[in-house]
Amino acid sequence: MAINVTPIPGLDPAINDLRRRTAHLINTEVLPNEEEMWRSRRGAELTEDERETSRRRSIELREQIKAKVFQAGLWAPHLPKEYGGAGLDFLSLAYMYEILAYAVGASSLFGIAAPNSGNASILVKYGTEEQKRKWLLPLIAGEMESGFSMTEPDHAGSDPRSIETEAVRDGDHWVINGHKWFTSNGIDANFFIVMCRANDATGEMGTPGRMTQIIVPTDTAGVNIIRGIGVFGHATSDHCEIRYENVRVPIENTLGLVGQGHQAAQDRLGAGRVYHCMNSIGQMWRAFDLMVERSLVREVHGGLLKDKQFIQGFIAESYMDLQSARLMTINAAEKVANDDPDARTAISAIKVFVPAAFHRVVDRAIQVWGGAGVSNDLPLAQMYLTARVLRLADGPDEVHKILMAKNIIHRYEEGTGWNFGT
Amino acid sequence: MAINVTPIPGLDPAINDLRRRTAHLINTEVLPNEEEMWRSRRGAELTEDERETSRRRSIELREQIKAKVFQAGLWAPHLPKEYGGAGLDFLSLAYMYEILAYAVGASSLFGIAAPNSGNASILVKYGTEEQKRKWLLPLIAGEMESGFSMTEPDHAGSDPRSIETEAVRDGDHWVINGHKWFTSNGIDANFFIVMCRANDATGEMGTPGRMTQIIVPTDTAGVNIIRGIGVFGHATSDHCEIRYENVRVPIENTLGLVGQGHQAAQDRLGAGRVYHCMNSIGQMWRAFDLMVERSLVREVHGGLLKDKQFIQGFIAESYMDLQSARLMTINAAEKVANDDPDARTAISAIKVFVPAAFHRVVDRAIQVWGGAGVSNDLPLAQMYLTARVLRLADGPDEVHKILMAKNIIHRYEEGTGWNFGT
Amino acid sequence: MAINVTPIPGLDPAINDLRRRTAHLINTEVLPNEEEMWRSRRGAELTEDERETSRRRSIELREQIKAKVFQAGLWAPHLPKEYGGAGLDFLSLAYMYEILAYAVGASSLFGIAAPNSGNASILVKYGTEEQKRKWLLPLIAGEMESGFSMTEPDHAGSDPRSIETEAVRDGDHWVINGHKWFTSNGIDANFFIVMCRANDATGEMGTPGRMTQIIVPTDTAGVNIIRGIGVFGHATSDHCEIRYENVRVPIENTLGLVGQGHQAAQDRLGAGRVYHCMNSIGQMWRAFDLMVERSLVREVHGGLLKDKQFIQGFIAESYMDLQSARLMTINAAEKVANDDPDARTAISAIKVFVPAAFHRVVDRAIQVWGGAGVSNDLPLAQMYLTARVLRLADGPDEVHKILMAKNIIHRYEEGTGWNFGT
Amino acid sequence: MAINVTPIPGLDPAINDLRRRTAHLINTEVLPNEEEMWRSRRGAELTEDERETSRRRSIELREQIKAKVFQAGLWAPHLPKEYGGAGLDFLSLAYMYEILAYAVGASSLFGIAAPNSGNASILVKYGTEEQKRKWLLPLIAGEMESGFSMTEPDHAGSDPRSIETEAVRDGDHWVINGHKWFTSNGIDANFFIVMCRANDATGEMGTPGRMTQIIVPTDTAGVNIIRGIGVFGHATSDHCEIRYENVRVPIENTLGLVGQGHQAAQDRLGAGRVYHCMNSIGQMWRAFDLMVERSLVREVHGGLLKDKQFIQGFIAESYMDLQSARLMTINAAEKVANDDPDARTAISAIKVFVPAAFHRVVDRAIQVWGGAGVSNDLPLAQMYLTARVLRLADGPDEVHKILMAKNIIHRYEEGTGWNFGT
Repeated sequence: MAINVTPIPGLDPAINDLRRRTAHLINTEVLPNEEEMWRSRRGAELTEDERETSRRRSIELREQIKAKVFQAGLWAPHLPKEYGGAGLDFLSLAYMYEILAYAVGASSLFGIAAPNSGNASILVKYGTEEQKRKWLLPLIAGEMESGFSMTEPDHAGSDPRSIETEAVRDGDHWVINGHKWFTSNGIDANFFIVMCRANDATGEMGTPGRMTQIIVPTDTAGVNIIRGIGVFGHATSDHCEIRYENVRVPIENTLGLVGQGHQAAQDRLGAGRVYHCMNSIGQMWRAFDLMVERSLVREVHGGLLKDKQFIQGFIAESYMDLQSARLMTINAAEKVANDDPDARTAISAIKVFVPAAFHRVVDRAIQVWGGAGVSNDLPLAQMYLTARVLRLADGPDEVHKILMAKNIIHRYEEGTGWNFGT
Repeated sequence: MAINVTPIPGLDPAINDLRRRTAHLINTEVLPNEEEMWRSRRGAELTEDERETSRRRSIELREQIKAKVFQAGLWAPHLPKEYGGAGLDFLSLAYMYEILAYAVGASSLFGIAAPNSGNASILVKYGTEEQKRKWLLPLIAGEMESGFSMTEPDHAGSDPRSIETEAVRDGDHWVINGHKWFTSNGIDANFFIVMCRANDATGEMGTPGRMTQIIVPTDTAGVNIIRGIGVFGHATSDHCEIRYENVRVPIENTLGLVGQGHQAAQDRLGAGRVYHCMNSIGQMWRAFDLMVERSLVREVHGGLLKDKQFIQGFIAESYMDLQSARLMTINAAEKVANDDPDARTAISAIKVFVPAAFHRVVDRAIQVWGGAGVSNDLPLAQMYLTARVLRLADGPDEVHKILMAKNIIHRYEEGTGWNFGT
Repeated sequence: MAINVTPIPGLDPAINDLRRRTAHLINTEVLPNEEEMWRSRRGAELTEDERETSRRRSIELREQIKAKVFQAGLWAPHLPKEYGGAGLDFLSLAYMYEILAYAVGASSLFGIAAPNSGNASILVKYGTEEQKRKWLLPLIAGEMESGFSMTEPDHAGSDPRSIETEAVRDGDHWVINGHKWFTSNGIDANFFIVMCRANDATGEMGTPGRMTQIIVPTDTAGVNIIRGIGVFGHATSDHCEIRYENVRVPIENTLGLVGQGHQAAQDRLGAGRVYHCMNSIGQMWRAFDLMVERSLVREVHGGLLKDKQFIQGFIAESYMDLQSARLMTINAAEKVANDDPDARTAISAIKVFVPAAFHRVVDRAIQVWGGAGVSNDLPLAQMYLTARVLRLADGPDEVHKILMAKNIIHRYEEGTGWNFGT
Repeated sequence: MAINVTPIPGLDPAINDLRRRTAHLINTEVLPNEEEMWRSRRGAELTEDERETSRRRSIELREQIKAKVFQAGLWAPHLPKEYGGAGLDFLSLAYMYEILAYAVGASSLFGIAAPNSGNASILVKYGTEEQKRKWLLPLIAGEMESGFSMTEPDHAGSDPRSIETEAVRDGDHWVINGHKWFTSNGIDANFFIVMCRANDATGEMGTPGRMTQIIVPTDTAGVNIIRGIGVFGHATSDHCEIRYENVRVPIENTLGLVGQGHQAAQDRLGAGRVYHCMNSIGQMWRAFDLMVERSLVREVHGGLLKDKQFIQGFIAESYMDLQSARLMTINAAEKVANDDPDARTAISAIKVFVPAAFHRVVDRAIQVWGGAGVSNDLPLAQMYLTARVLRLADGPDEVHKILMAKNIIHRYEEGTGWNFGT
């Protein structure tokens, strides 16, 4: 199993080169060690000793690979060079994420780990020098962990304006009260970026009552982590339910201006949705390869799966799902890169289209593998869960359909109609 | 949340009464305690002490409910009265399972727990008096656990005739060698019923080389349990991979005749598929109730979900999924009960149709609940996984479609065509 | 090709007998002559002489068959015996329509022809003796044709309360003004039953402004038939666009009371939707038979279609579509017959579910037949158009989904939840 | 209603300019006259006089528009300049066809009319000077009509190698015998290009028994046109069933070499499939515009359709269908233009994907329009039929899925896997 990349006609040669170099590292360093590196996660299948040995071997391997990634100049591709990253632009990152997603856990070997990488990007863009020194540098150095605290149980995640967690200014502090859940990385984080409705009676920092991001160290009094929310039957997770009760943080922890939080979230979600989709597409390629390769060797009822029409149908349908999802995502990415006014519609479209296509491809690959498909022996079961969650995270499908429709209808109301052919 | 049953017109009054009595127990005893009983499973959300208290309270509650089930004459409904069961017939059981499935874990409160209950039924039907004394009675008394060991990693589960685990007769013993996986209850079991290809050179017990069920105590030398296979990211499970290496068991452990294993498996799978479907339908009712009730109270973008067309569409589509799945399952059950020659086709149809409908209903309910839908706070996430597994267990959809088509085509080749209107 | 009926277990023996007798007539009289009877419609494929001969032969055959239907006591099954019909009840008719629909045009050989038969039923129920004498008897005798004039171009057909055609009382006459379209049988009809908003200043006949049915002879001044609306590229049709311009008809042409029109339309649509669905199901059986039989003989790429998995998949999926559509329709019919309060929900469900299933089955049958499937050589192409129209006639799918959802939600708001298991 | 084109970033400026110029003609000349030009087809809705007037006015308008097209240098874009065409290359044509398809019947106003234009292209490529003089020039001048005669009723259209119509050489003539159907333009044609299995005992012209195209004047003895095959209930059509019975044509009517027929058919089908898809996409744009514009003005149940979630869902889903179909088609077209080895797979993919997406978009537009949607008042009903036929013409979906799968599997068998990311 290996990634087979060839230059895409018409694409920026630098991106084609980036794709080739990334694929080379994945093919030579990551894929051959994938089994070994993730083996320690197998839990009860291993004895305590085996697990310990495996864990040590895994750490060692990971450090070796990270060193090669660093040598190749591909470490932390999302960060500016001044912060030790590769300083890639939006489109380059999108194409790179597609390739990284093919190998399980490869992105962390390239210095990318949600939500830290997203938080780092926000700190780079909105942080003061002091904030960068205090939070960004340790984050990049791996000395700190961080979380992103936005979603609230009492309000639809699809409507950021409905956020009720409130930060009220009291002298040179914010006093924060609110109830959040699905705060990622909640257990390990040293600080959270918390999305609040900030009320500053003085109005000196911006418009009161508007969404604002505030950095909250997790050891501040009143940051009550209630639980890691278990999902899909897992006993726990690092997505936490948190109550902020009279949490006091200094005003200088405001990230950007009061009221800039909505924009920052949109930045994160806009580009982020393209990255998420490219990430899904990389996984679809993996699922596709797993499906086709299984069909070459698995015999049932006196024949190979590859010669059965049902399986041929699965392969053909999956090829179409992959191609359409991929072309739509690249088209959306180009619109984002070109500041095309239709970019928002295109992003809502891939937010709906890609997870659905991802689900179908993985679902077929699981069906071809049978019991092994839902087991931890293959990455398919995890992909199946991921695809499901993507349909409700960052705004459920239904909300994005409404957004698409409203954008489109607006253009017809204005009398121009849709832009035929783009 | 409660089950609202009314008599089904035209249905045997005894079954209507059984439905009413079962629903009454679920409504008054199980549902009000559901949260409390399953709380201890919440893992890291609880402190060690809380978990211990919760566990004790849960055990106590469970015993109280079991006593009431026993008083109501509904304990172990699948077992004959002589073995302490309620002695229900096939159709009664099917209708009862629908209701039990509504409440999480209710069936174990009624003395039904896979695979023990299926194994007990096989022992009742095929076991010798000695076997019943030795394995059935302790199983019923809860003094033993059991597993069912059929599926093999190297062969399609959909083709029982391809089983390669072999039992070769050596004097008055079988010597068993083979490789199984997804053997249910593998970790706790005291004995397995192992599906083998039995070769008896004397031929005295039946046709050599034919599928045969053999009782294998799990502490027999050579029963090597390799691992509980983790699925969907869970660290482990009680579905085990097992190597049988020169396992010797006495000939009297043969369950039924040599060669009768295929029939026994079909018995189990035939009725079992109807039970599985009724089980799915009971869960669909629960998911449906959860979805509709959420829509009555959840506000988004200035309105209740119940007033949004997308949600109304979800409710209407789910109603149709539930009704069609339910009517097809009852129709198949009646065909089984009437020894209708089309029963096999009808069973393959529900094997494909019901899990797909189950998936869609649960998927929509999850979408309506958002993040909570995939969390362990609700039974929906587990249902989502169950529905997926059902599409590949006991023969994947594709195999059952082929079976349906072949049965139908056969009738046209014979010149009669299908039976219009049944 | 023949209908193969066997008694349905548990069904009223009289209905089983009716099914058997109807199928016998279809198998022995209609199907063997189907080709001959409909040949004259083949248009340009025949010379003028051939068409004339064919037309004569067709009329002759049709009269012979009608005589046999009459002898068998199955003529005009929807009409009371006193009006020369077979006097069948609702459920019997539903089962009979399923069988009639199998053969192209068979219902007219049994004395049933929309919209005359629906109009006759309304006249039987709501008509005065005088109205029956004047309109019903000639209609039954075949001396008159009739149309049903409800849908308006400017208002959604799904909302009968939005009807704007107005009848204003002027002495002992109504003066009708309005714009209708898709008035069935518009070209041949001698009278229309026109759905109006009747305003009677005296209020003596009922509540003003409520929907009312009025009999309008088509030769009344002001009945302006604009055109037969061509659909699907056909040059014309008998579904007409009509402007009623100051049309005066006597008050005694009021059919039922002022304000009773809505109820009458619901009667027609309620039972009518069950009949429509049974009609669709009979056609699905025909399409299913055509598909399977083709697969037995058609060779492609070195094998029979019946041995290809794609075709086996088509057959299996179509079997499930047929079974689920049929069981849901029968369940809805029983609810109507039992005055079950859920009948309306069940009828909306089949209104949506059955045409969609019908479409899928016909679509697959067409695909199996290739070019012949869309040609007039087979009844499939016409079925394809019918299935499409059914999804928007009598209220589009979307409206019925909303109705279903509202009925369901209402029950949860009341606190009872849905009736588990019916 | 108008086409709104803006330059596509990255596309050849000449093509962007072509798109702009074509759209301008459609917007200013064709769309404003569409209703008038096609009115005469409305059949029974018009009196004989009205129809005659309308027909005359239509001819006049059409000639005016053709003159403008000619002035704009866009006449016969598929033909080389030396034959009076615009001499456009493959990609330019593909983009132009998308725009032409938006307006009903526009392509004939630009000098393109199937199957004449396809036949002309074949004559340009394979014809001798003599053949061009005799058949091509009159065809281009509109003095002759032509047909393409390939499909046979006894063999799957998806397998051109199964053709049985035979041409046996007898001296300096071919003697042709065979049975064809769905020969386009059969009634009006002056000559057919007939696909035969040519057997030349001398072998002098190529390999005997290989597919060969032969020009057959329709007035040759033995060309027996049995009928125009009616489809979808239309009384007749210009797709004919033909028996060739001892038809003698001179050897010099051979078009290209003996055995070159398969290649010529592939040429036609390969590029042709891209053109067909662009044609479908242009119609999807029209259907999309019709749907959205209707939603802006149609009121139901107290609100505009545009504000209903079901309709917003239709619009969003249709946008995704349009975008994905369009991007896949352009991607396939570029692969064809670049002689990419994956072009065949990409073409099979759009052959399956695009008609399905076309169907869904049109289906939703019809649902939004209700009865008008299936009437001849709008182009939607015809699109609905077209989309259905496309799924079985030129090889049914199932065959193209198998082709895709085989191409993909082949690459994995070779060990390279699919080309990640193209």
